[in-house]
Amino acid sequence: MSVVVGHTWMELMSVERCWGLLAEEGVGRLAYLLAGEPEVVPINYAVDDRTIVFRSDAGTKLSALDRNDMVAFEIDHIDAESSTGWSVLVKGRAQQVHDGSEIRRLGDLDLRPWPIGEKDVWMRIVPEAVSGRAVHRPHPPGDEG
Amino acid sequence: MSVVVGHTWMELMSVERCWGLLAEEGVGRLAYLLAGEPEVVPINYAVDDRTIVFRSDAGTKLSALDRNDMVAFEIDHIDAESSTGWSVLVKGRAQQVHDGSEIRRLGDLDLRPWPIGEKDVWMRIVPEAVSGRAVHRPHPPGDEG
Repeated sequence: MSVVVGHTWMELMSVERCWGLLAEEGVGRLAYLLAGEPEVVPINYAVDDRTIVFRSDAGTKLSALDRNDMVAFEIDHIDAESSTGWSVLVKGRAQQVHDGSEIRRLGDLDLRPWPIGEKDVWMRIVPEAVSGRAVHRPHPPGDEG
Repeated sequence: MSVVVGHTWMELMSVERCWGLLAEEGVGRLAYLLAGEPEVVPINYAVDDRTIVFRSDAGTKLSALDRNDMVAFEIDHIDAESSTGWSVLVKGRAQQVHDGSEIRRLGDLDLRPWPIGEKDVWMRIVPEAVSGRAVHRPHPPGDEG
């Protein structure tokens, strides 16, 4: 589906396309609630069976997710100059992975922790909604009327 | 201030350095509360007198900020491969700019709206806390012992 507004095209991307982009990227931003206020941090992540997995340590973030597991996870690729690009938003619940064999399997994923520290806790975001939009600028500009 | 953990250095950046990076970038991610749940979206922004200004339309985001003005705003530049890079987090309150002369002055800023639409509402994030961290990897790797 696409919507034309002014001199840009906005494409509402399919869920398939969103997962394709999620699989290609490796860094996103995790938004969560800390003491009732929004926080947002960059994380390294990997896609595992249509969930988002990442590593954390037993710190503030994990405690916050334990109290409120609703998260929003975002990736994007945006060109500020032309105001074109795309973003994908995953909304869902974050849960810790406890199963030992599962953790060993996740350990084989190509996932480097960010930023530093042991990050020995594996977390998984189980999506409840996945959406994405892309903004295109026609060439030459303005030819869409 | 810097902290050495394993094979990376984490630098807690000064507030001055954070504002320097905020002034250089133009796209960040805004996290806010929508119906009590975290949301995160990319926005184009500009720095104006140690505040973050951006344009919005009178849509869902604006309604959400009207109900709960606490936001987190993040910029980063991260190399997933080496797990090095930096991020800056601004926490504060978002408020609409109503003053006509102020809006005209902001109109002179180099700020393109994202993604599409009229975006005729100007918003300002008044920071309550600004923090940043950078992660460096020594060269050659491992020489820090």
